[in-house]
Amino acid sequence: MKNSTILSTLSLSFALSLSAVSQASDRQTGIAEVLRDEALLSNHAWQLVESLTTEVGPRLAGTDSDHRAVAWAKKKLESLEFDKVWLEPVTFPIWQRSHESARIISPYPQPLHITALGYSASTKGELSGEIIAFPTLAELEAASEDTIKGKIVFIDEATQRTKDGSGYGKTVIMRYKGATLTKEKGGLAVLIRSVGTDSHRLPHTGVGVLLDDPIPAAALSSPDADQLRRILARGEAVTVGIDTKVSLQAEGSSWNVIAQLDGKDTPEEIVLIGAHLDSWDLGTGAIDDGAGVAITTAVAAQIAGFTERPQRSIRLVLFANEEQGLWGAKSYAKDHETELAQHVWASESDFGAGLIHHFDANNEQLASRAEPVLAALDITVGHEPGSGGPDIGPLSEQGVTTFRLRQNGMDYFDVHHTADDTLDKIEPNNLKQNVAAWVVATWLAANPD
Amino acid sequence: MKNSTILSTLSLSFALSLSAVSQASDRQTGIAEVLRDEALLSNHAWQLVESLTTEVGPRLAGTDSDHRAVAWAKKKLESLEFDKVWLEPVTFPIWQRSHESARIISPYPQPLHITALGYSASTKGELSGEIIAFPTLAELEAASEDTIKGKIVFIDEATQRTKDGSGYGKTVIMRYKGATLTKEKGGLAVLIRSVGTDSHRLPHTGVGVLLDDPIPAAALSSPDADQLRRILARGEAVTVGIDTKVSLQAEGSSWNVIAQLDGKDTPEEIVLIGAHLDSWDLGTGAIDDGAGVAITTAVAAQIAGFTERPQRSIRLVLFANEEQGLWGAKSYAKDHETELAQHVWASESDFGAGLIHHFDANNEQLASRAEPVLAALDITVGHEPGSGGPDIGPLSEQGVTTFRLRQNGMDYFDVHHTADDTLDKIEPNNLKQNVAAWVVATWLAANPD
Repeated sequence: MKNSTILSTLSLSFALSLSAVSQASDRQTGIAEVLRDEALLSNHAWQLVESLTTEVGPRLAGTDSDHRAVAWAKKKLESLEFDKVWLEPVTFPIWQRSHESARIISPYPQPLHITALGYSASTKGELSGEIIAFPTLAELEAASEDTIKGKIVFIDEATQRTKDGSGYGKTVIMRYKGATLTKEKGGLAVLIRSVGTDSHRLPHTGVGVLLDDPIPAAALSSPDADQLRRILARGEAVTVGIDTKVSLQAEGSSWNVIAQLDGKDTPEEIVLIGAHLDSWDLGTGAIDDGAGVAITTAVAAQIAGFTERPQRSIRLVLFANEEQGLWGAKSYAKDHETELAQHVWASESDFGAGLIHHFDANNEQLASRAEPVLAALDITVGHEPGSGGPDIGPLSEQGVTTFRLRQNGMDYFDVHHTADDTLDKIEPNNLKQNVAAWVVATWLAANPD
Repeated sequence: MKNSTILSTLSLSFALSLSAVSQASDRQTGIAEVLRDEALLSNHAWQLVESLTTEVGPRLAGTDSDHRAVAWAKKKLESLEFDKVWLEPVTFPIWQRSHESARIISPYPQPLHITALGYSASTKGELSGEIIAFPTLAELEAASEDTIKGKIVFIDEATQRTKDGSGYGKTVIMRYKGATLTKEKGGLAVLIRSVGTDSHRLPHTGVGVLLDDPIPAAALSSPDADQLRRILARGEAVTVGIDTKVSLQAEGSSWNVIAQLDGKDTPEEIVLIGAHLDSWDLGTGAIDDGAGVAITTAVAAQIAGFTERPQRSIRLVLFANEEQGLWGAKSYAKDHETELAQHVWASESDFGAGLIHHFDANNEQLASRAEPVLAALDITVGHEPGSGGPDIGPLSEQGVTTFRLRQNGMDYFDVHHTADDTLDKIEPNNLKQNVAAWVVATWLAANPD
């Protein structure tokens, strides 16, 4: 870290000498500008995500790979200039896939590309049945048991490509509720169109089935859903076979990996930033959420390497098992229950590596101080309350104030939860802009005066 | 066909009434203009490729699916207005995959996405070995046996995206020669970077191994090749495991499916157009070569449905088993050996459904007559000799004159020979432009006066 310290010192002198020219309204926004410009020159986040996705790769919660990710994170954080690095255990069931295949049996035999949804059941050999199709979840909800009993349900709702992920927000309900509804109405299994915006034969996984007494549930890739729709349109009965083998181990564990830089004035006040360390098993978890791990780690490390400590403490939390139901986040909120009043800000990076275009802080002072500093990154500022990210949910439910750096998610759901979530999908320059924006927000949140 | 006949009659009257305004240099180019404009309004090619890829899907040569494709083609052609439709048997060995998986065993355990190359051998359970990497085939060629013996060879040559497919032309040699060289030098198996231009985890198959005494050979998807390269760059020995199960059945068969419209003046003179009916097993063979089947069938059908017969005969050949070594094309050339002198023109559509931008005819008269008619389709014209397409090779070797409608292949190798070769990759309007260009070239080739 010697080089970055030297760079920080140089940059600070440079900034202070420029204080008359800069638009900084106070000394702290002046430092935020320096940190922003330093971040734009740094490859640290790229190095982190390259290392995590290459040396660990996929890291499904509770597996050996996930435990290697925890060891990787602990070692990385210990090599940086934090005051403390520690692990907090999290327990949850471990769900794993070992086989998944499907095919159209009749009228036109051919393979289908599927992936099992998290917590779904095995088919115990090939399960075959006639397809009953619904264009939307609402139509499945409205359908009678008679039409569904003994059949395989196919829900074919397409996800709209949107900047803010609202398209996903609508169709992911099909993933959450499709299996439960199918089961209630006597269906054998459910196939959903992937909750994704691409047209590749790489289906999108994700949790979607209640843990107790599940049924087989899987996602078809978009081209496969199109194909099934075309075949159904011919009007004949369509029989498919599904073969998934999964396992559920009741007790598994992982760790929230935490690093802290103590504040110089009010160390008991915590600004929490983070991401989740686990990923789905199909890809190498580059955009979900290696990018977030890299962005927030680089930000915390940059501030830790800076010549001046922030007034408040900065806590970096790399959450365990976000993917299967925020297990790490819920565990953190519970374990730190008595300390939550001192969590003055919290935010997570968990939306890939697209450019940040907007900053929302549920507090006018932070927003207005950040505005001129973020303008140079082409980021607008607002005061909309809103989620600080999935893992921040359990904290904000208990009153922790959040900020959010909104990213362009137009391409995010092309690869989200697929085998295609790999390093090549991250644009290094976008990652730099993310770190620059995050370091501004984090610094200002940690330095109220 | 009633409607299209009416349309043809109307269009012809229209064209004849417009003959003063049109740029047609003779009556035949006037008709070519009419056929061109009619083709631009027709969905026939789209209907054909939709039907083939949906109702048959993948059709690996010699399999039941391929035989269903032959039945599909025969039935379609018989429903159109040809004079004759017939099948000619073709025999070849049947190679099929039943399992393929791979993983990095050490230092960073994780799965790799591979697909076995055609005619490669099974690994007989997991075959593990240390990787020795070569950036190019030339470096493998230059390497000593000592460095390769007992190892798994990885050839990492990237394919350049080009309009004319010349990038593929260069790297496909790695697929053809990689296994042979590896075997000669004592390697256990070969992994090549996919011969493709995309960055998705859908590896590209293709033939690449000599039939007699092969070794295991597979392609990694581009992101997997990148990952392996990054892991190797860490400097430690890298061990991978490969598990492929394939079968080779010595005697299989399929059929060239042929339709003919007899010429009114010189029926013994044949203008042969065609495509190949088989596909790889991974996708549904939409761009390779469902598009070509649809384009050339629509063209032959349009001419067969036209009010006036062409002077020469038009023969549509849907070749069997192009993918595994031009088995159908070689068989056709042999079976029709004595008739080849009467094959006055031959050309194949086998480069997807990208727009046609250039027409080359190895004969100045055809080129110059086609030029003004093709200009409206934004197609330039030249006289370069050149291949008429893979299946035309065995004919042109025996002196048959060829023409070629050159397509924009910028995206072709993104999905070529992958599971992603599906109907959604075809743009219906591009298909119409292809049919319009083909019908002009075919009509003029069949009507010399």
